[in-house]
Amino acid sequence: MTTFRTNLARVAAIVLIATSWMGSGLAQEPLPSWNDTAPRKAIVAFVERVTTQGSPDFVPPAERIATLDNDGTLWAEQPLYFQLLFAIDRIKALAPQHPEWKDKEPYASLLKGDVNAALAGGERAIFSIMTATHAGMTTDEFETIAKDWLATAKHPTTGRPYTDMVYQPMLELLAYLRSYGFKTFIVSGGGVEFMRVFAEKVYGIPPEQVIGSSGTQQFEMRNGRPVLVKLAVVDFVDDKADKPVAIQRVIGRRPIAAFGNSDGDLQMLQWTCGASGPRFCLYVHHTDAEREWAYDRQSRVGRLDKGLDQANAGGWTVVDMKGDWKTIFVSPP
Amino acid sequence: MTTFRTNLARVAAIVLIATSWMGSGLAQEPLPSWNDTAPRKAIVAFVERVTTQGSPDFVPPAERIATLDNDGTLWAEQPLYFQLLFAIDRIKALAPQHPEWKDKEPYASLLKGDVNAALAGGERAIFSIMTATHAGMTTDEFETIAKDWLATAKHPTTGRPYTDMVYQPMLELLAYLRSYGFKTFIVSGGGVEFMRVFAEKVYGIPPEQVIGSSGTQQFEMRNGRPVLVKLAVVDFVDDKADKPVAIQRVIGRRPIAAFGNSDGDLQMLQWTCGASGPRFCLYVHHTDAEREWAYDRQSRVGRLDKGLDQANAGGWTVVDMKGDWKTIFVSPP
Repeated sequence: MTTFRTNLARVAAIVLIATSWMGSGLAQEPLPSWNDTAPRKAIVAFVERVTTQGSPDFVPPAERIATLDNDGTLWAEQPLYFQLLFAIDRIKALAPQHPEWKDKEPYASLLKGDVNAALAGGERAIFSIMTATHAGMTTDEFETIAKDWLATAKHPTTGRPYTDMVYQPMLELLAYLRSYGFKTFIVSGGGVEFMRVFAEKVYGIPPEQVIGSSGTQQFEMRNGRPVLVKLAVVDFVDDKADKPVAIQRVIGRRPIAAFGNSDGDLQMLQWTCGASGPRFCLYVHHTDAEREWAYDRQSRVGRLDKGLDQANAGGWTVVDMKGDWKTIFVSPP
Repeated sequence: MTTFRTNLARVAAIVLIATSWMGSGLAQEPLPSWNDTAPRKAIVAFVERVTTQGSPDFVPPAERIATLDNDGTLWAEQPLYFQLLFAIDRIKALAPQHPEWKDKEPYASLLKGDVNAALAGGERAIFSIMTATHAGMTTDEFETIAKDWLATAKHPTTGRPYTDMVYQPMLELLAYLRSYGFKTFIVSGGGVEFMRVFAEKVYGIPPEQVIGSSGTQQFEMRNGRPVLVKLAVVDFVDDKADKPVAIQRVIGRRPIAAFGNSDGDLQMLQWTCGASGPRFCLYVHHTDAEREWAYDRQSRVGRLDKGLDQANAGGWTVVDMKGDWKTIFVSPP
């Protein structure tokens, strides 16, 4: 019996070591693709502060909500938002069924390969492109279309699949937060149904933790089976001051940590860090023209201007992609 | 070394027995407040079928989504929806600040205690009552108001706190489903912010798993602090054909089990059980005039008419509250 107890203690010790190792962030050193500069130190210090039992800043697991933007924060967004590139590819694929598009903007320019001319039509042009490609089918049909595209399409300048253009340091951040009991949510201006096609596999974020823009849907019975039909009506644009609104509506709890990269994320960060208690706000600043892209105050895509001022004034963390990240993209599988 | 291995095997066996016992539903007999009639048998058979590894109907944990209505399904809804009773109490509390209400319907009738006369104004009257009591304050202010009311208000006929009028068998069902890896969501016509005040404590359902009706909100800075202001504009009514729409928008995955009690839940059950693969749909039928209320096809609150026909035609499970439930309400603490 003594032997049994001794061995039991040994097994218990092994289990304890194993679980404490698992709890400390998947590898012995968390965030291995981050240089040990200020942002990494700030993240680790915050997470330890809010998860240490007995700490004055301890936050119960149920309240460890983290929200992250997607485009430019979790994956790249240049030369255009990837969902817009998907829509443009769809316009080309659907063109044979729409002979009238040859003489109608913005389709005509797109079909000639002149994206800039097509987008010169501004928001109305983008609305036309989006509704022509994201409405008029069931939710199941759309899922198949988006999945097929992601499986085969290649990024125009890197030639890589789009889901290979996610940021390795941010994947590590997601895993690190979750290993400490955080629930990670995407809160993005991107279409919610587009993001859900890859978010679970690529980010480990299940569909019910993806919040985004959406169109109106309609419940119908077709051949005795219920379907949801995507209509050409914008229901909600999850951007700027509507990001906190979406967070409140869907999550119903204020995040304690938020991560973004553009002025579209500013109100989400304000909402997160503008309350009492321990809070963490971080902007990813695109500063690496060699390994990724360098853009901020003047960019058409992912402009970061007011947000950068507020980050500096408010003591938020700013990631300098060039200096703070050892690697940018995930390694090809 | 042989002894160590033998003992290790013994420890492993103990751990396995312990975890399989924990996984089998919190107590030795699951659903103790349910009589061992058809509904209980059907629930247990379904849950075992979809959670047994190797079963042809096995469903991975991430896809074990269950959606439940609230009013009349998880707690009572007579003589009126409890949230409407809350609003009526608020009208009385706010009346001193609104002298004009004395001569204006529906407020005048409410202040005289004549609820029926007030509600004779139909949807417009209800809209007036709801916006006067659910808008014009911040989300934090509303949470405090609703919390205070729930802590002190008593049901008009039973004299019990409203949160004591939840159904004990349904609490056991929630715990049973979760012990088998189901994620339980409320999908209710009730206001999402009202339900969130008690859902976590009473049902064990966190705010991000509560879906309901909502008003438009606006992000504002007040004295340098961000707030969300509730506006007198209805944004979304989570009822009937819009329940599947809300499920798709917020959860993004089709439930495999759904529970309701009225025609307002019909499309949610159709959406859930109208797909291939193992599915479970259940209606709670209010048949117990002695211990609760008896109502269905003719009721103004929680009408169950078309739903009952479809349940019978489609082989859905129908709970006869009188015959299938040993107890109705939770015991007072």
